[in-house]
Amino acid sequence: QSSVTLFGVLDTTVQHASQAGASVNRLLGTGGNQISRLGFRGTEDLGGGLAAGFVLDMGLNVDTGAGLPTSENNQVNAPVAGTTFNRRSTLSLSSRQLGEVRVGRDFVPTYWNITVFDPFGTAGAGSAANLAQGSLTRLSTVVTGLRASNSVGYFLPAMHGFYGQAMYAVGENVSPAAAGTRNDGNYAGARLGYAAGPLNVAAAYGTTSLASGDVSTGNLGASFTAGAFKLMAQFYRDAKEQVAAPSRSRGWLVGAQIEWGQGYFPVSYSQVQDNSPGERKAVQIALGYVHNLSKRTAVYTTYSRIQNRKGAAVSGGGVPSVANATWTGLDLGIRHIF
Amino acid sequence: QSSVTLFGVLDTTVQHASQAGASVNRLLGTGGNQISRLGFRGTEDLGGGLAAGFVLDMGLNVDTGAGLPTSENNQVNAPVAGTTFNRRSTLSLSSRQLGEVRVGRDFVPTYWNITVFDPFGTAGAGSAANLAQGSLTRLSTVVTGLRASNSVGYFLPAMHGFYGQAMYAVGENVSPAAAGTRNDGNYAGARLGYAAGPLNVAAAYGTTSLASGDVSTGNLGASFTAGAFKLMAQFYRDAKEQVAAPSRSRGWLVGAQIEWGQGYFPVSYSQVQDNSPGERKAVQIALGYVHNLSKRTAVYTTYSRIQNRKGAAVSGGGVPSVANATWTGLDLGIRHIF
Amino acid sequence: QSSVTLFGVLDTTVQHASQAGASVNRLLGTGGNQISRLGFRGTEDLGGGLAAGFVLDMGLNVDTGAGLPTSENNQVNAPVAGTTFNRRSTLSLSSRQLGEVRVGRDFVPTYWNITVFDPFGTAGAGSAANLAQGSLTRLSTVVTGLRASNSVGYFLPAMHGFYGQAMYAVGENVSPAAAGTRNDGNYAGARLGYAAGPLNVAAAYGTTSLASGDVSTGNLGASFTAGAFKLMAQFYRDAKEQVAAPSRSRGWLVGAQIEWGQGYFPVSYSQVQDNSPGERKAVQIALGYVHNLSKRTAVYTTYSRIQNRKGAAVSGGGVPSVANATWTGLDLGIRHIF
Repeated sequence: QSSVTLFGVLDTTVQHASQAGASVNRLLGTGGNQISRLGFRGTEDLGGGLAAGFVLDMGLNVDTGAGLPTSENNQVNAPVAGTTFNRRSTLSLSSRQLGEVRVGRDFVPTYWNITVFDPFGTAGAGSAANLAQGSLTRLSTVVTGLRASNSVGYFLPAMHGFYGQAMYAVGENVSPAAAGTRNDGNYAGARLGYAAGPLNVAAAYGTTSLASGDVSTGNLGASFTAGAFKLMAQFYRDAKEQVAAPSRSRGWLVGAQIEWGQGYFPVSYSQVQDNSPGERKAVQIALGYVHNLSKRTAVYTTYSRIQNRKGAAVSGGGVPSVANATWTGLDLGIRHIF
Repeated sequence: QSSVTLFGVLDTTVQHASQAGASVNRLLGTGGNQISRLGFRGTEDLGGGLAAGFVLDMGLNVDTGAGLPTSENNQVNAPVAGTTFNRRSTLSLSSRQLGEVRVGRDFVPTYWNITVFDPFGTAGAGSAANLAQGSLTRLSTVVTGLRASNSVGYFLPAMHGFYGQAMYAVGENVSPAAAGTRNDGNYAGARLGYAAGPLNVAAAYGTTSLASGDVSTGNLGASFTAGAFKLMAQFYRDAKEQVAAPSRSRGWLVGAQIEWGQGYFPVSYSQVQDNSPGERKAVQIALGYVHNLSKRTAVYTTYSRIQNRKGAAVSGGGVPSVANATWTGLDLGIRHIF
Repeated sequence: QSSVTLFGVLDTTVQHASQAGASVNRLLGTGGNQISRLGFRGTEDLGGGLAAGFVLDMGLNVDTGAGLPTSENNQVNAPVAGTTFNRRSTLSLSSRQLGEVRVGRDFVPTYWNITVFDPFGTAGAGSAANLAQGSLTRLSTVVTGLRASNSVGYFLPAMHGFYGQAMYAVGENVSPAAAGTRNDGNYAGARLGYAAGPLNVAAAYGTTSLASGDVSTGNLGASFTAGAFKLMAQFYRDAKEQVAAPSRSRGWLVGAQIEWGQGYFPVSYSQVQDNSPGERKAVQIALGYVHNLSKRTAVYTTYSRIQNRKGAAVSGGGVPSVANATWTGLDLGIRHIF
């Protein structure tokens, strides 16, 4: 009568990536359809609509058996080595009426629109994050782009389709501190959405305080399901204060998941650009097919292509980035949920 | 029909600590009421009163999802990085008549009185370890203050209230070795106690051999339950050989857990001093309240204050230590056992 | 109804090792009878003879609670620190008719004959690996001697006693690359065997591409069970290209597991030599007894002695290697399967 549930995803893809004549073949163990993980979770009913719960969620490199790093201070990642519960490590008190208070390490509110409204779920060669969190964005300069440590979060209770969350996380610096370093690594953000029937729409905004200049990001996403088509769109912009241009970046994506046979086709078109003098720009087109062998197991393939323009050098998959060169990535993978 | 049981504690506290005008706000994920952990354990009945068993117990920083380091040689801790079974990693053979032989990494016998007879269970802002294992003690110079690797332990069987254990652990040095380094990291210690009805009393003594000078520690603790009051006291002294003063330290604690409503108040007064010329001294007063939401889940708060005198600079919670300055810590936390 | 099974082995031995007057006493937590581990596995029946499955298998140092390192590129091991699924981290699709495709980190085909046909199962003082993967062999210069990351493997289905597997693993280097480094860390190997009634025989061959010179290894093993005797033999040779002698090494082992009472005696004689001018040579004699307390729990002892000749300096167990000196190891341990 253990009060713990194990859960996880193993997803590995044979990936071929190339750019400007260079190429790499890899076995990518973090996943090309869903991100690989091993987790432990539990809940306890405290009565009166109140519950306690926890999640410990460990990222996995299935290709090597290694884990992934976390951050102690939201300023830099710790050096990699063993496994950590880098994805999520949280303890919660929740009330059916009042919502949930959640402490620990968690995804930041500003991450969700990027992944929920990406037909590829920010996994693999076609991930929206290739652009949205790639080298052309200001968001690529913070470790709080996906998750924050030392956080306290609040989630709204169920409210007729409205949902929302806010998070505050700290860098745990000593005060008084050198100018500008007091809040180094602090994150504050929120997300608000509405989901009903075929529609889901949400907006988020957040800021990370950094000694090198605060980075803020805002985004907006929506999906609409019509028969076999789940249409998706997202828009984002981010900015770094107190630095010369390129100090801002913005991008958008349109895409869909199209049911077909035992699976679906994810497809997306996205672009990102910064405010450097020439306005560097990258455009990604991605197409895949996910074939379900069961509810838990699928095989899939993804083809993605990023065109770099006006000096942009977005890359991925381990190939060195080259300005104005086209990157292509091809995934052939297996995903298993347990 | 797995023979493994998962167990654990997640405990996180929002902690404010300050000393001499400096302060830090942190989310402390190792725990303020019980120490955060995730474990795996199992036992096998071998018949005839004999059993085999194991425990793998991993410390957790819930605030970051990171683990905690262990020591390979009982001389220094390994560099941190991923999760390890730093708390306990043991394999046992036990007999109902003869007791238990336990090998691996485990808590040292000399640790138990410090934590069992502390109203705060050596967790959080009010921990007895703030003084008992703090910078003023000689024990703070060994990594075997809490646990030892490479250990063989023996535990007495149930004996009409008497209990006891002995441990020998090795630093695994090559012999012959440079003068004084042969036994570097070896630990030997024992604990003996008696528990019956409202009374529990125990004494322990242990020595760690170190190239820089052997460190020995002895302690004594007792608790007595009278109605809603569980009174506790402990005394300890430790010494480092072959070094100039401060070579010795000693301290004591009196405290209680006082049942109240759905919870209890932990309260303690403790002090420690060394044998430096001025006899540096630190005094801690701590008061808390633990409110049980269920048997497994509680919310709690602790206020603790350490006064440093005659040059002492005991600190905690991430603020830099300042001689003769008063340290204060405040916890507001949640603890969940699973 | 979790779809995950936990499994593992905890095995620790008090080991005394000595060579040329130097000695070390250790608690060896990786195991002296079976290798210590903690794992998670699951399978899903996909219908039509098809199944998906996974294994996450973490090596353990029970003596310290630490884990063991893995390799990211099959060229060097990552620096140790926390736990990793270094033993195995794989995702599979398997068909009863067509066999199994397995991706991730796994044992290399060329490892199996060394361990399956060793009476000591390559664990503890008497391990065949002391010679077969020791300092006299060319195989000791690759990290793919036991396992490879970034691998795709194929396993034959059940075929009237025939069994077999092939593996290809990559170092994930960028192409084009400096001369000789394109395939650095790539491994290719295969194993084919036949098991029926009392007989089991298998051969394996594999090559690791390295910038410093490719290393290939081939081996052959067999076992035959006759009453209480399980006889075992193995032969291996390995070679490193493009280096001066010693560039080759070869060895063999004969041994047996002899059932006796509630346990068995493992016993082996093995030797290895290289092609240095003097043909350095090491000979190991090992004898043990494994006493089963149950199917899952055993106590055991092993005595092993390695004689070094003609300049060989094979050692083990943490004592510095000395040319032409005799090494002895003695284990006294407990093994518990869960």
